Amino acid sequence: MLPLFATLLLLLAAPVRDTGVNAEPGAVAAAAVVAPAPAQVSNAGAALTTAPAAAPAHVTDVTDVVAGYADEVAAIMAESLARGRAMERLTALCSTAPRRLAGSPGYLAAAEWARQTMLADGLENVRWELVEVPHWVRGSTGRVRLVEPAAHAAELPMLALGGSIATPPGGITAELVVVDSLDAGKLLGEAARGRIVLFNGPLDPTLPTTFAAYSGAVGQRGAGATVAARQGAVASLVRSMTTRLDDNPHTGAMHYADDVPRIPHAAISTLAAEKLATLVAAGQRVVLHIEQNCETLPNEQNPNVIGEYRGTTRADEVLVVGGHLDAWDVGQGAHDDGGGCVQALEALRLLKTLGLRPKRTIRVVMFANEENGLAGGRGYAKAHEGELPRHVLALESDSGSFVPRGFSSDATGDTRELLAAIVELLEPWGAGTLVQGGGGADIGPMRAHGVIQVGLKPDSARYFDLHHSPRDTIEQVNPRELALGAGAMAALLYVAADIEPGFTREAAESR
Amino acid sequence: MLPLFATLLLLLAAPVRDTGVNAEPGAVAAAAVVAPAPAQVSNAGAALTTAPAAAPAHVTDVTDVVAGYADEVAAIMAESLARGRAMERLTALCSTAPRRLAGSPGYLAAAEWARQTMLADGLENVRWELVEVPHWVRGSTGRVRLVEPAAHAAELPMLALGGSIATPPGGITAELVVVDSLDAGKLLGEAARGRIVLFNGPLDPTLPTTFAAYSGAVGQRGAGATVAARQGAVASLVRSMTTRLDDNPHTGAMHYADDVPRIPHAAISTLAAEKLATLVAAGQRVVLHIEQNCETLPNEQNPNVIGEYRGTTRADEVLVVGGHLDAWDVGQGAHDDGGGCVQALEALRLLKTLGLRPKRTIRVVMFANEENGLAGGRGYAKAHEGELPRHVLALESDSGSFVPRGFSSDATGDTRELLAAIVELLEPWGAGTLVQGGGGADIGPMRAHGVIQVGLKPDSARYFDLHHSPRDTIEQVNPRELALGAGAMAALLYVAADIEPGFTREAAESR
Repeated sequence: MLPLFATLLLLLAAPVRDTGVNAEPGAVAAAAVVAPAPAQVSNAGAALTTAPAAAPAHVTDVTDVVAGYADEVAAIMAESLARGRAMERLTALCSTAPRRLAGSPGYLAAAEWARQTMLADGLENVRWELVEVPHWVRGSTGRVRLVEPAAHAAELPMLALGGSIATPPGGITAELVVVDSLDAGKLLGEAARGRIVLFNGPLDPTLPTTFAAYSGAVGQRGAGATVAARQGAVASLVRSMTTRLDDNPHTGAMHYADDVPRIPHAAISTLAAEKLATLVAAGQRVVLHIEQNCETLPNEQNPNVIGEYRGTTRADEVLVVGGHLDAWDVGQGAHDDGGGCVQALEALRLLKTLGLRPKRTIRVVMFANEENGLAGGRGYAKAHEGELPRHVLALESDSGSFVPRGFSSDATGDTRELLAAIVELLEPWGAGTLVQGGGGADIGPMRAHGVIQVGLKPDSARYFDLHHSPRDTIEQVNPRELALGAGAMAALLYVAADIEPGFTREAAESR
Repeated sequence: MLPLFATLLLLLAAPVRDTGVNAEPGAVAAAAVVAPAPAQVSNAGAALTTAPAAAPAHVTDVTDVVAGYADEVAAIMAESLARGRAMERLTALCSTAPRRLAGSPGYLAAAEWARQTMLADGLENVRWELVEVPHWVRGSTGRVRLVEPAAHAAELPMLALGGSIATPPGGITAELVVVDSLDAGKLLGEAARGRIVLFNGPLDPTLPTTFAAYSGAVGQRGAGATVAARQGAVASLVRSMTTRLDDNPHTGAMHYADDVPRIPHAAISTLAAEKLATLVAAGQRVVLHIEQNCETLPNEQNPNVIGEYRGTTRADEVLVVGGHLDAWDVGQGAHDDGGGCVQALEALRLLKTLGLRPKRTIRVVMFANEENGLAGGRGYAKAHEGELPRHVLALESDSGSFVPRGFSSDATGDTRELLAAIVELLEPWGAGTLVQGGGGADIGPMRAHGVIQVGLKPDSARYFDLHHSPRDTIEQVNPRELALGAGAMAALLYVAADIEPGFTREAAESR
């Protein structure tokens, strides 16, 4: 690795470009503004006139131009690693608003913290944009008790799933039936009637990424209640969505089909699920008592929180960087997605601190409601629909704040080549890989409008140990790993927002 | 990533090669044997006759052959991730022998655990080979107290450094002088006389890997006492070797030059070092009281613990896989190097479980003394000197048990190309990168004999948060990350030990 370090040291020794722009308070809109700020309205519907048509040959040239940004990338990474404030800010967010599910008082505290942070950083056009969000509350009671066989009687670690109904007063007591997949659940027929169904399909540990394992199992959480109820079950449970065998329960969203009775649905820990499955497999009659008083209250208005770092010569072209500010009501939402939020904020702060103002505008969006509805992402795409033809790229960090390995994107062709060249600048920090994939749930609704999707890809090994659980706390976040991600995001954003000819609309539409 | 997963699933669906060899107790030598076992003696000095000369053209062919091992690699990784026993074994080692510094009763407990584990796994030629090791003990007292200015009086988190002498009875009280590097310390001159010198140079956080930062700072720990004493200092301290700012002190080895008086040398936490430096920078007179009763006892005999998985047709060609069984006397030595030890053991267990017996012999070596002397590695190389011409490769895991990113090696030319091709088989699991570098301290003494050095390279972000400190405990090890490393090592070893023509002596000598 020595040649690499030598190169880096040379880069660090080079003077950092200083445009003299260090803090620019800009125009700050009042809080709780629903309509887009004037800067957006004035450009709504205007055609993108500055980007030249993308000739196949230009990418090779642009790749050379990308290499010219190596100094800035090195300076950004060094600043983040030596003087970054991401960890300090994540600590502040988790202290201010550990429980910030959509509709809750905690979410409003987080939104005000985000607004104040953007103002303190001197971002421009700082504002709230309200969206309508669901308001589910866990309530005061949640328990799953193993009552038969009596010799095994015990409370099982559980969490009601977001969106679930409560049990009737006094709870539900019924015999258990266990299946190892959603499809197996569909075949239960009479065996489900009057019973509690446990969906016990594990995340496949042999898949190279835990995200792939999660995708293969999470249908049990989302649709389990519907599948069970269709056959007459009185309640349903799901094995927690983690590769780890422990007593830590994981919550998450679930949904009901309109044509099926609604039954209570909850998650139990993986060890509890194994215990129940073992008893049933041994031929024991297993009876559970389930009690939860969660409920869905009337919808609320919650803000997406938005700020900008305006570009110099192409300010009407926009790159969005975001994370979702809402989090489940257990733990602190430190990895999901507090870390992604502070990385997005930190990315802009790093560029401003270094005096690196790119040609295009970078807009940071803290989305209001990803966990149980995606109202934040959908609301942003709708409110800014007229402006989306000038959104060239959206970046999200919502896969945990672990050490970054690179980025994912659905971009193709020339656009992908350019993105890959930019990402490769981060290879010395181990984050130089561009893989196929989406960008993130919140920016997803912009995809249909041709906005390039980019996601930060941290290492996935530990994420589902913590995800949606009481253990997703600040202690699980490593400051250096968080800072590497923030720096990588800042570097990618800076080059993508500054490069000529860059991500043209033509290129985006060729996807 | 879907095409990748699809490929993997196809691979996993393929039948695993089963040679029918599943457990072979073999000949087990008695414990405490110093001389090499008969199998080695009988071949000592014999020329390697089976490997054909390496023609430049063969590597391209071999690369094709490497690709033919994809099924086995996928099976090994799946087995490690789904049914691996590395975490269970690390828990056992850390429970049996959390404090296993060379010469201690803890080390002997660890050595017996390792021998029993090898026997339980059915390894062949299981034995102890004794080496002479130092025996330093921390003693019952260790303290650094800030006594002036009185308003700041406090105990500072500290650990005596391994090999340091004690203070005189009653301790040392003296004024503090602070420098930010070993070189700055050399310029102190009269300013050091009668004083305590604090070497406060931080690890450079901006370097891409923390190992590079550690290398640049650790000289203060090793040589600080000599530099300070040469100018008349009465004791010396060093800022803990970590990028993290906290109150966790980190120990490690230090050494004295023969021509300089020996003075006590200890580490203080990074926060304590910052506090002292701030006071001194503000012009305050700072006085410390240091007291420690560590001592160096007469040398002991400790075993390297060795076992083998004998090859089928080239059994006299040996691949060594090892880790160091000794660990500092604080924490549990979970990452350093308990994890590396169980990964080495697990690599052989995985191959045996899958019935994958390669053509060459794989020998696992648990080295006796890396932390404070390297007697284990030196002793192995010396005891097996006659056999080293038939050692084609040595692999070590001693950089923490974090998620593997690939391997390091000093191999060059055709040998490196072959190694890179094998490592690339692990790309689907994120461990496909071969970087320049050594293999590990313990296998280092074999390098002069032409043995290819290979090291597992885990992600480095968190390692020096824990290294040599009370926080290096089993709780810091992630089971999936540990299993990914064990699987990657097993896969590399299997292909390297089985492939034809493979790592020939000629190739090794061309390095």
